[in-house]
Amino acid sequence: MATTLSFLSPPSLKTSSFLHHNNVTTFNLRTQSQLIRTCTPMSIKAFSAPTPAPPLTQDDLKKLAAYKAVDYVSSGMVLGLGTGSTAAFVVSRIGELLKSGELKDIIGVPTSKRTQEQAASLGIPLSILDDHPKIDLAIDGADEVDPLLNLVKGRGGALLREKMVEAASAKFVVVVDDTKLVTGLGGSGLAMPVEVVQFCWKYNLVRLQDLFKAEGCDAKLRVDGDGKPYVTDNSNYIVDLYFKTPIKDAGSAGKEISALEGVVEHGLFLDMATAVIVAGKEGVTVQTK
Amino acid sequence: MATTLSFLSPPSLKTSSFLHHNNVTTFNLRTQSQLIRTCTPMSIKAFSAPTPAPPLTQDDLKKLAAYKAVDYVSSGMVLGLGTGSTAAFVVSRIGELLKSGELKDIIGVPTSKRTQEQAASLGIPLSILDDHPKIDLAIDGADEVDPLLNLVKGRGGALLREKMVEAASAKFVVVVDDTKLVTGLGGSGLAMPVEVVQFCWKYNLVRLQDLFKAEGCDAKLRVDGDGKPYVTDNSNYIVDLYFKTPIKDAGSAGKEISALEGVVEHGLFLDMATAVIVAGKEGVTVQTK
Repeated sequence: MATTLSFLSPPSLKTSSFLHHNNVTTFNLRTQSQLIRTCTPMSIKAFSAPTPAPPLTQDDLKKLAAYKAVDYVSSGMVLGLGTGSTAAFVVSRIGELLKSGELKDIIGVPTSKRTQEQAASLGIPLSILDDHPKIDLAIDGADEVDPLLNLVKGRGGALLREKMVEAASAKFVVVVDDTKLVTGLGGSGLAMPVEVVQFCWKYNLVRLQDLFKAEGCDAKLRVDGDGKPYVTDNSNYIVDLYFKTPIKDAGSAGKEISALEGVVEHGLFLDMATAVIVAGKEGVTVQTK
Repeated sequence: MATTLSFLSPPSLKTSSFLHHNNVTTFNLRTQSQLIRTCTPMSIKAFSAPTPAPPLTQDDLKKLAAYKAVDYVSSGMVLGLGTGSTAAFVVSRIGELLKSGELKDIIGVPTSKRTQEQAASLGIPLSILDDHPKIDLAIDGADEVDPLLNLVKGRGGALLREKMVEAASAKFVVVVDDTKLVTGLGGSGLAMPVEVVQFCWKYNLVRLQDLFKAEGCDAKLRVDGDGKPYVTDNSNYIVDLYFKTPIKDAGSAGKEISALEGVVEHGLFLDMATAVIVAGKEGVTVQTK
């Protein structure tokens, strides 16, 4: 498989060292400019030029992590296909490898209508959990990753289907750029989403906010561009929780949120990730449990 | 209040004895025929006739329990209004008492669109949990009641809204006829409903069935009259679980069901009822915890 990934396989990453600290493997890039050059037709010419390469964008980093994650894919696998901008790079890459014949007999189980449409457009054979209840590997992005590889997911609105598919997966590889790393979940100050039934959503919004008084929680109904409530693929609403300080005990919090009647799912993905691939300007890091 | 309920208040029940066994109070009817006679204009004449009265129908028993439950209602209360044939008698009675002025300042919080329509047609002022998150008293029917006052509910399809409203209630009075009593939940052989998202319902149906192998569980998607999937007020499906033997540990079962991603709510109402009113051919029994 590694030889098929010319962009991101270890040779093209020009890894100069492998550092193993506990379960963290770091692939250091020799220089950023070399990496960039391998991405573009200009790269050969650029090797002789001393001018600095443009800095890696967040999209570059997402792509780095995404392509690395596809190293975990083998022919014949049933794959959970995530949702969001990083996952879209994964799906795109799998489509390329199927087209070139480097991957065969893949079945994808998408986690959203958007991903389903993207994968179908790339010719990836698709199925659903009803027909493939056991998934070999799921790859998806995340909104936050803590040091124990617990996640916040669902800012893209697909948290329920993502959790269903990823909980059904033997392995779950998460791909993020390093802006997603937090010391504690909720610590980014961005939304931790909770999917709730439309019925009496305001009642549940207040109850959710009250659960996290210690963390200074602000709960808001998610709205779309027109100011109308955002409706999930499952016809539910999303209440976004914003924390002033990280969640003190994510395990307890997950149980307390789930216990509220009318809560369909929440964005805390705990003890689910088997590996997290982090792309930063210094290289690609793989963290495993 | 008691004087307003001529049909069911202790005087008209002609209670000949009050038996207190632990927390069970039994109101024995002197004779069935007397009870029936007090319900109809023929009752006075019938006192002198030795011919046996027709047996109490299941609807008569439901009405008995329902009217007894309305004894718990006081003016000024916020009331959770249940769903189903027995709860409809409760709503109807509350409407009567509001109309006659014997009850005042009631606010009803309905648990289904059907109940909302019935209550509105009777002129009962209505609200929702968003505006009245604390409910004084909820009254509702149940499909099964075990000796610890745990319940199976939701055969009428309103389990989620019922559970939301009843969990928000300081007191929850359950009204049933005695055919609903079971030694263990699931023991009636009738459906224990689980509300699931439409997405991959078959996957969850199989998982639910697998949870209850020991009980010989048969799981079926609920369909409407046309054979199409029944859709709840919250746009979800219902998987009905049929057990050959009662559920061994309802508490664990409830947690295991809730932990399945895509399950929205289940019909096990555990540790929620504060009183159960049971109408049987021998009288009305009130069980409290």
